[in-house]
Amino acid sequence: MERTEIKDLGEFALISKLTKNLTKNRPSTLLGVGDDAAVIDPLGKRVVVTTDMLVEGVHFDLSYVPLKHLGYKAVISNLSDVCAMNAKPTQIVIGLGVSNRFSVEALEELYEGVKTACELYKVDLVGGDTTTSPSGLTLAVTAIGLVDGDAVVTRGGASAGDLLVVSGDLGSAYMGLQVLEREKEVFKEAPKAQPELDGHSYIIERQLKPEARTDIVTELSDIKVKPTSMIDISDGLASECFHLMAASGLGVRIYEDKLPIAPKTYDTAREFNLDPTVCILSGGEDYELLFTISQTDFENIRNHPKLSIIGHMTEDPKEHIMVTKSGQDVELKAQGWDPLKA
Amino acid sequence: MERTEIKDLGEFALISKLTKNLTKNRPSTLLGVGDDAAVIDPLGKRVVVTTDMLVEGVHFDLSYVPLKHLGYKAVISNLSDVCAMNAKPTQIVIGLGVSNRFSVEALEELYEGVKTACELYKVDLVGGDTTTSPSGLTLAVTAIGLVDGDAVVTRGGASAGDLLVVSGDLGSAYMGLQVLEREKEVFKEAPKAQPELDGHSYIIERQLKPEARTDIVTELSDIKVKPTSMIDISDGLASECFHLMAASGLGVRIYEDKLPIAPKTYDTAREFNLDPTVCILSGGEDYELLFTISQTDFENIRNHPKLSIIGHMTEDPKEHIMVTKSGQDVELKAQGWDPLKA
Repeated sequence: MERTEIKDLGEFALISKLTKNLTKNRPSTLLGVGDDAAVIDPLGKRVVVTTDMLVEGVHFDLSYVPLKHLGYKAVISNLSDVCAMNAKPTQIVIGLGVSNRFSVEALEELYEGVKTACELYKVDLVGGDTTTSPSGLTLAVTAIGLVDGDAVVTRGGASAGDLLVVSGDLGSAYMGLQVLEREKEVFKEAPKAQPELDGHSYIIERQLKPEARTDIVTELSDIKVKPTSMIDISDGLASECFHLMAASGLGVRIYEDKLPIAPKTYDTAREFNLDPTVCILSGGEDYELLFTISQTDFENIRNHPKLSIIGHMTEDPKEHIMVTKSGQDVELKAQGWDPLKA
Repeated sequence: MERTEIKDLGEFALISKLTKNLTKNRPSTLLGVGDDAAVIDPLGKRVVVTTDMLVEGVHFDLSYVPLKHLGYKAVISNLSDVCAMNAKPTQIVIGLGVSNRFSVEALEELYEGVKTACELYKVDLVGGDTTTSPSGLTLAVTAIGLVDGDAVVTRGGASAGDLLVVSGDLGSAYMGLQVLEREKEVFKEAPKAQPELDGHSYIIERQLKPEARTDIVTELSDIKVKPTSMIDISDGLASECFHLMAASGLGVRIYEDKLPIAPKTYDTAREFNLDPTVCILSGGEDYELLFTISQTDFENIRNHPKLSIIGHMTEDPKEHIMVTKSGQDVELKAQGWDPLKA
């Protein structure tokens, strides 16, 4: 395979190579890549902004994460934060620090993933900064989104009695990671062994190619349900419940038998001798939305195929209970992943 | 001195420590640090967004750059890009990757610099992401600014005959760097020697604590001069001239005797056996503004104490000439710093 050294290309040639064929997906994008800054027309809406920093060896392992997937996921995790404000993502900028271990072709692959995410979510890549680094790969993505002023949903704002709702199913990204790490260990022992990924494609895809729930933001708006509080699930359900509790000054009760899990995720957890419920509570990177709604909205969402009502908020801010399948109250514990302890 | 390990504090405690006492400087900031994303009210204006990635060992050397100054400068370089769109900076978000070489106290120092810049420029720090990294320090700052729709100035848009104008003086940050690097070498040879920084405070400050020219954006607006094109000088005057030329499809003629240089910068260049003009043309990090104005605006700015008219745009896109002090035409060359070749 061809290998072009980044230093042989130079900054401006590299940028134009990486950003060529960028299409414009949003009317709010007035000026994209190529000037000192991008220009956005907010079209009368509020602007939300969020940023994430991904560091090789901390957030990702390139021995089993293809660069294209990394680029895709780096965008998605930011779009997910925009969704968690009940906003629609519209633009991103991307900062990239890379060592000379990476070729121009490798960066093109990474950008392939970034562009694929942009196309799929109709988001415009409007700026960035690319530089060398003494070691490894660091990715900093900042996402911008737009939302009507009265539609913004924060982490706070829930009332006691509000129902706790989650989109999709949980624990899958975490189990996907377990499979990938197992195969990495096998590969270390026997480099010629075929990786056993068959039958695990759902959970591996949830790990390598997660999605941001822009569809949920749109559908809630369509059925005129405005969550009273919302967060996205990046560190595990329990940890996110605690954020909602703290921001609203409330307690929470959730019901184990209501927690959504895909059959494949459940089976794989069992195969790994892991408790599926723990995977749901503490496994991260699902990028599903966790939100509260007023009880008056119950009828609107009770049969929604993408949503599960998993519990409710309670008066006592010290209460954080999971009711088990056998009907026992147990303390909900957050063992969310901490990037400072990785 | 006290040293608290970052891992002992945990992510959320660290964030609240670093972001405590944040004041709100802008009416456009509706929601700052602490949720999935910040919320900004664009107040009917256009939004500009720009990002920069600073990597230890590439963009800065912590052996002579205090962390507080690094934080300050990381913000300034982004605010400068906002100014270059003729916009006023209003918010920033900051991504930080740090190895365990850095203590919590070190990060607090870095944030001290970030907050000082925010206070001075009335900009709000509204979000960020802090994580560990296997080695070194990486800083990704994204800045947001607001501008009236009809006031946006890009790199393109100049016409032949437009006057080329620069703010402040040039080459100082580069000479400040030369002094700091010389003293670093002296220190390596004789660690007990006192650094000879006396008398160099102006140029060292220009290197360690540069300013973004928000004042120029305000003053141009006050005197009703709208530049026809604009860029900030981060890579050296010549390189930025080439960007304006390319974006407008024009040539440029500048006059050596019009290039603004501080006496201290001139003297120090001589002391280092460097050509002061080369320092102006190729030394970066001045963060001054380079812009073009229509000749009809000449009277408005000819006596402006902060601005120098250094040349004009010409029809031929292949022309890039500097007229020397002795009246000779020489080719203008860009030897701007390339972060991919550092």
